Amino acid sequence: MTKAEVRTVTLAKARLRENDIVWDIGAGTGSISVEAALAAAAGQVYAIERDAEAVGLIKNNTDRFGTGNVTVCHGSAPAALDGLPRPDRVFVGGSGGNLRDIIGLVHERLPEGGRLVINAVVLETLTTAVETVTALDFKDIEITQVSVAKTAEVGNSHMFKSHNPVFIISGEKK
Amino acid sequence: MTKAEVRTVTLAKARLRENDIVWDIGAGTGSISVEAALAAAAGQVYAIERDAEAVGLIKNNTDRFGTGNVTVCHGSAPAALDGLPRPDRVFVGGSGGNLRDIIGLVHERLPEGGRLVINAVVLETLTTAVETVTALDFKDIEITQVSVAKTAEVGNSHMFKSHNPVFIISGEKK
Amino acid sequence: MTKAEVRTVTLAKARLRENDIVWDIGAGTGSISVEAALAAAAGQVYAIERDAEAVGLIKNNTDRFGTGNVTVCHGSAPAALDGLPRPDRVFVGGSGGNLRDIIGLVHERLPEGGRLVINAVVLETLTTAVETVTALDFKDIEITQVSVAKTAEVGNSHMFKSHNPVFIISGEKK
Amino acid sequence: MTKAEVRTVTLAKARLRENDIVWDIGAGTGSISVEAALAAAAGQVYAIERDAEAVGLIKNNTDRFGTGNVTVCHGSAPAALDGLPRPDRVFVGGSGGNLRDIIGLVHERLPEGGRLVINAVVLETLTTAVETVTALDFKDIEITQVSVAKTAEVGNSHMFKSHNPVFIISGEKK
Repeated sequence: MTKAEVRTVTLAKARLRENDIVWDIGAGTGSISVEAALAAAAGQVYAIERDAEAVGLIKNNTDRFGTGNVTVCHGSAPAALDGLPRPDRVFVGGSGGNLRDIIGLVHERLPEGGRLVINAVVLETLTTAVETVTALDFKDIEITQVSVAKTAEVGNSHMFKSHNPVFIISGEKK
Repeated sequence: MTKAEVRTVTLAKARLRENDIVWDIGAGTGSISVEAALAAAAGQVYAIERDAEAVGLIKNNTDRFGTGNVTVCHGSAPAALDGLPRPDRVFVGGSGGNLRDIIGLVHERLPEGGRLVINAVVLETLTTAVETVTALDFKDIEITQVSVAKTAEVGNSHMFKSHNPVFIISGEKK
Repeated sequence: MTKAEVRTVTLAKARLRENDIVWDIGAGTGSISVEAALAAAAGQVYAIERDAEAVGLIKNNTDRFGTGNVTVCHGSAPAALDGLPRPDRVFVGGSGGNLRDIIGLVHERLPEGGRLVINAVVLETLTTAVETVTALDFKDIEITQVSVAKTAEVGNSHMFKSHNPVFIISGEKK
Repeated sequence: MTKAEVRTVTLAKARLRENDIVWDIGAGTGSISVEAALAAAAGQVYAIERDAEAVGLIKNNTDRFGTGNVTVCHGSAPAALDGLPRPDRVFVGGSGGNLRDIIGLVHERLPEGGRLVINAVVLETLTTAVETVTALDFKDIEITQVSVAKTAEVGNSHMFKSHNPVFIISGEKK
C-alpha cells in the first residue's frame, strides 16, 4: 500500500476538483481511490486493478470509508480502460508492464488541462514514464522523489526508519 | 516559504475539518494558512507572525487566494496568542526561540483530540519539540522526516535537485 | 551491522593514519574495527563491546580478514576504557545509554587534533552527541546525515530500497 | 566538485588496489583522481577532461596534494582514451553525451575482474548507464543513491542543508 505521506503528495499533484472523473490505474489496495473519492466528492473514481485479491481489498476499503463514488474494474490496463468515461485526472500506481501503452491511451482520452500522475518505485518505470510523457508533449512535467523516514519507539528512544523512496511523475495534457 | 510537498504532508498531519479553528504560529508567508483556510472553509485561521514584512506577504497571499477566513496577527508567540479563540488544530512553523513555552500554551488551550503539527528545519527545534510533546504526554506522536528531490531541466536532461529536509512532529492532545 | 556506504563515510570522517591508536566503542560486529585496522595498519584498534555474542562475531571477523592489530575488549564503556592506551581516533557506534560519560572520557584522553566520530540512528543519541561535543568545545564539528537507497532486482526491474538513515557526528579535540 | 561523502562512497565502490591503472573519465576538478592516486600509490591515474579550465584545476590539485602519479589528458572521451594503458579501474564522472560509447570502450579494455564506477546526477545518465552495463553483461551491478544532508550553524542552531543526490552505478567485467 502507498504510505500516507507519498499518497498525500501524489494526490496533491493531481489537483483534484469536486466533479472530476478519476481513473486510478493499478489501484492496488485502493488507498489512492478512496482519498480521490473523498476529494472529488461529486465526481466518480474508477479503480482499475488486475489482481483479484486486490480488487477485494479495494471493495473493503471503499465500504469502510463509505465512499460510494468508486467503481472497481477488475482487469488489465489498457484493455480494461475501454468503455470508461473520459477522465479529468489519472493516477497510475501500477502498469503490469504496459506503461507506454497506458500513457498513450490516457493522453488520447484526457482533455486539455487534464492531469496524469504516475508513481514509480522501480527505475524502469521512472525512465519509461519520463520518456513517454516527454514524447507525448505533456506540459508542466515534474519529477519528484519523495523520501520519508519516520521514527519508531525503541525503549525510550526514537529510531529513524526509512520508507522506500517513490518517484512521482506528473504532467498536464496540452 | 514551505515547499509544496512538505506543506502538503504538514497539512495532512493536522487532519483538518471544515469548522476548525486553526492557529498557524510563525506563519511566514502564509502558505500553510491559506491552504488551511481552504480546508477549514467554515472555520477560522489565525496566522501569527512577528515579522512585519512577512505579515504583508500573508495579507497578499490571502487576498490572492480569496481566503476570507484568515486573521493575521502581528506579534510574537506565545504573547500574541492571548485572547485568540481556542484552537482545534495548531501549526508551528517558527517559534522565535520560544518553542517550549508555545507548546506549553498550545497544550493548555487545545481540547482533547486537538492536534499540533510542528515543522523543524534545525536540530534544536526537532529536539525541543520532541522533548516537550513527550513531556506533556501528547499521544500518537509522530516524527516524520520528509526529503524531496525534484528534477530541473538542464539541456535535454533532468537533474535531481534536493530541497532541504524538514522534520514534522505531530501529536494529539489526550 | 553498519552498511557499507555509511561505514565508508564514517571511516573517512576519522581521517585515520597508519600508526593510529583507535578505539571502536560499541563495536558491534566489528565491521568498523576491521576496516580501521586495515587503514591503521601499523597502529592498534581496540574494539570495545559489552555483548558477549557480538564479541564472538568481532573475533570471527578479525580472523577472517587477517587483521592482527585488533584487540577485543569485552565490557561496557566508559568503565571498559580504563587502562587502554590513549587513542588518536575514536568511533562510537553504541553507548549503552552512557554517551555523555563516554564522550567526556574520550575528550580527556584524546590528544590535541584527535578525532571523534559518532554514529547515531536514534534521535536521542544525535541530540546528546551534538550537545556534548558542543559543550566540550570540540572543533570542526560536523553533523552529516547519510541516506542510502540501493536497487534490488525484481524480475527485470530495479526497485529502490532504502537503508535507514544514519547521522554521523564528528569533531576534533582542540 | 564531487562532495566529500559521495566521493568517498564512489572510491569505495572501485575497490582500488595499490598497483592499479585508473582512468578517471570526466575528471572535473580532479578530486576523484587525487584520492585514487593516493590509494593506488604504486599505480597510475589518467584524468581525462575535455574542459581546458578544469584541466588547469586538476593540475593545481595534483600539485597541491603531491600526487605524482596522475597524468592529465585534455580531450573528449572516448577518443581521448586511445593509446592509454589498459585500466584496472574506471571512474566516469562526466561523459559529454557519449556515455554509451565510453562504457562500450571501457568494457573492451577492462580485464576480467576490472571495475567500472559511474556517477550520475541526471536521470538520463542513470538510465543509460544501467541499460548499457546490463546489456554488456557486467556482473555485480549495483545502483546506489546517496543523499547527504549536513548541518550549517545558524546562530546557535544547526540547520540541515541537503546536497543534491547522486546515483552511483558500479559493476565488474566478467
